[in-house]
Amino acid sequence: MSTGTETRPTWVEGADGSPYDVDNLPYGVFAVDEEEPRVGVRIGDQVLDVAPVAAAEMLDVHDVFNQPSLNALMALGPSAWASVRTWLTRLLTEAPERDVVEPHLRPVDEVRMLLPFEVADYVDFYCSIQHATNVGRMFRPDGDALLPNWRHLPIGYHGRAGTIVVSGTDVVRPTGQRKGEAGPAYGPSTRLDIEAELGFVVGTPSDLGSTVATSAFADHVFGVTVVNDWSARDLQAWEYVPLGPFLGKSFATSVSAWVTPLAALEGARVPLPGQEPPPLPYLRVDEPAGYDVAVEVLLNGEVVSRPPYAAMYWSPAQMLAHLSSNGASLRTGDLFASGTISGDEREQRGSFLELSWGGQEPFGNGRTFLEDGDEVILRSTAPGTLGGRIALGEVRGTILPARP
Amino acid sequence: MSTGTETRPTWVEGADGSPYDVDNLPYGVFAVDEEEPRVGVRIGDQVLDVAPVAAAEMLDVHDVFNQPSLNALMALGPSAWASVRTWLTRLLTEAPERDVVEPHLRPVDEVRMLLPFEVADYVDFYCSIQHATNVGRMFRPDGDALLPNWRHLPIGYHGRAGTIVVSGTDVVRPTGQRKGEAGPAYGPSTRLDIEAELGFVVGTPSDLGSTVATSAFADHVFGVTVVNDWSARDLQAWEYVPLGPFLGKSFATSVSAWVTPLAALEGARVPLPGQEPPPLPYLRVDEPAGYDVAVEVLLNGEVVSRPPYAAMYWSPAQMLAHLSSNGASLRTGDLFASGTISGDEREQRGSFLELSWGGQEPFGNGRTFLEDGDEVILRSTAPGTLGGRIALGEVRGTILPARP
Repeated sequence: MSTGTETRPTWVEGADGSPYDVDNLPYGVFAVDEEEPRVGVRIGDQVLDVAPVAAAEMLDVHDVFNQPSLNALMALGPSAWASVRTWLTRLLTEAPERDVVEPHLRPVDEVRMLLPFEVADYVDFYCSIQHATNVGRMFRPDGDALLPNWRHLPIGYHGRAGTIVVSGTDVVRPTGQRKGEAGPAYGPSTRLDIEAELGFVVGTPSDLGSTVATSAFADHVFGVTVVNDWSARDLQAWEYVPLGPFLGKSFATSVSAWVTPLAALEGARVPLPGQEPPPLPYLRVDEPAGYDVAVEVLLNGEVVSRPPYAAMYWSPAQMLAHLSSNGASLRTGDLFASGTISGDEREQRGSFLELSWGGQEPFGNGRTFLEDGDEVILRSTAPGTLGGRIALGEVRGTILPARP
Repeated sequence: MSTGTETRPTWVEGADGSPYDVDNLPYGVFAVDEEEPRVGVRIGDQVLDVAPVAAAEMLDVHDVFNQPSLNALMALGPSAWASVRTWLTRLLTEAPERDVVEPHLRPVDEVRMLLPFEVADYVDFYCSIQHATNVGRMFRPDGDALLPNWRHLPIGYHGRAGTIVVSGTDVVRPTGQRKGEAGPAYGPSTRLDIEAELGFVVGTPSDLGSTVATSAFADHVFGVTVVNDWSARDLQAWEYVPLGPFLGKSFATSVSAWVTPLAALEGARVPLPGQEPPPLPYLRVDEPAGYDVAVEVLLNGEVVSRPPYAAMYWSPAQMLAHLSSNGASLRTGDLFASGTISGDEREQRGSFLELSWGGQEPFGNGRTFLEDGDEVILRSTAPGTLGGRIALGEVRGTILPARP
């Protein structure tokens, strides 16, 4: 495999300078008609069907592309991920490869994108100090907004892996129990919300009883998805003490169809905003540990918020070190998400709960929580390594009415 | 397949009248030497290697036994579970079958038992009013012991599926962050505990957006395991607000190697102790909805507690209806556990936290929390359908010192 080809322009028409240039190359799983689903790589507006090219070139790991999920590829580990990325870059930038590769490009709007990986365990964190402070003010108006543990560890909890769905999946408004004026009531959620997050996908597993240091982050994490952690605030507010969110979250969590390799975000690394007090040694991290990823929240086509990932207090390397600090093992396909991304400004808040301040202060066109038929899209971009910006996969979902 | 053979004695020597008589017949996964792991059924002190018998008898579902987990069997659904149970009963009670079956019996102490099912999602509930009240008194001495939501819904949360281990697996003392006198500290847990629970294993999946009524419990739940939900109380107490337990639980959860079919617990069904106020309609359940399962907690060979499952406030059918009430789908292999089983008496408490009242009142030989080298065994029995008692699989674990 050759190296040093990263700055040569791609021969794929329309891709050079686009958000899906060769400094991006996210992975997904696609299906066409009755064919078996398999791994695709996005370049411009095309999906590269990797398996036949890898087989033709006798790549030793070619089997991992002829799979209905990214898990086999992710399980290969970081040196294989780097080799595959170098190989893909060569395919898409060197003119002699064009005749072999071009027949295996398909327009992205002619394929169906599936859930890109089999989710093992799903953990959701709470890493934005602005979000945690906003929620604390609303849920505990008489107490301290930020709880005593918050600055000492990245707070997190396990979510439901089996209800993670791919972008484009409709979301049925959940029913559930909430506190009513005349006692608890059961019915469709009246405070249905979003949470704009990034998610980190584990490739390399670890052994039960071992820990993963912050410095080993890139050895274990394969890539990044955009996550919409749909939330029924009325269910959540009633159920969450003392064991945390459960049915207020477990009805659906949407992830992007494309997983951006960690290597594609090298140009987006920025220092954290600052941690005070300094974390305990097992949570210390080498800077730059943050990521300058810009997120946009669109409600029915209109941008209603622009949450900045660079504002997050806890870094993904710290989340991973913390989640394994008790010896919990990692599996290929584990997903851990950042929690809602919120910035300092109102128009940077990553949930409707915060944008409408608990429903008290309507935003946009007089909106508070989600209505049936609403479509939410999360879009996300970051600085690439070629001077432009790369796009992370978008997350789209439409609210269907509650079932009778 | 014949029916009505249930009361004929088994021809397996030593099994008739034992806790593993033909009214029990739990399923597990065993391995011998270098052979591929496969499904076994326990009878007396023997394991029946089902796959070769099913193949020889040309059972149409014989493939499900030649698997390293029970998931394929569990996915077949309730009518197949009943047919297989009738067939197994016939094999083990009718004399003419003996020549075919006996060569496929192996002494249970000559096989290795493996994790019996691939865990999809793991949910842990909090269904004992005595346990919730005890913990509430200790953790919130100035507030109401029972929170306002507790009598209205079975409180639960998602746990880590990837760290569920089979009985006999050693447990490394977890390290983690806890609140110290001079601020947060990181080190080996000093308050390592058990929780004695029952777990319910889902066989039949459900669709995203649909709900499972309490009356459909036996259509979805394949069987029951005994669960030790190891808990690091010092980690848990510091981390659990506001999103619930995380690293205080996620280092290991032990389950029995044998899954008792729900049908074997028909003789153990008892009415619930009573629910006041009556639950909302989606949580109403036909009686008898409880199970009279007796649990014993042994610490280094000595019984230190006898938690009575019959005392549980919320029934497993209500747990399942609640967990799916928001449309969350079920997958084959989902495990939901009851939460700590505690009765009214001190010697019926299912955790060391409660037995020692937060470490203040030593029990047994002056014990509070777990020490390195301690062995904990949970044993469990229930009335069978033949007049005796059946044994649920035991859960055994030994504490190893924290890793340096």
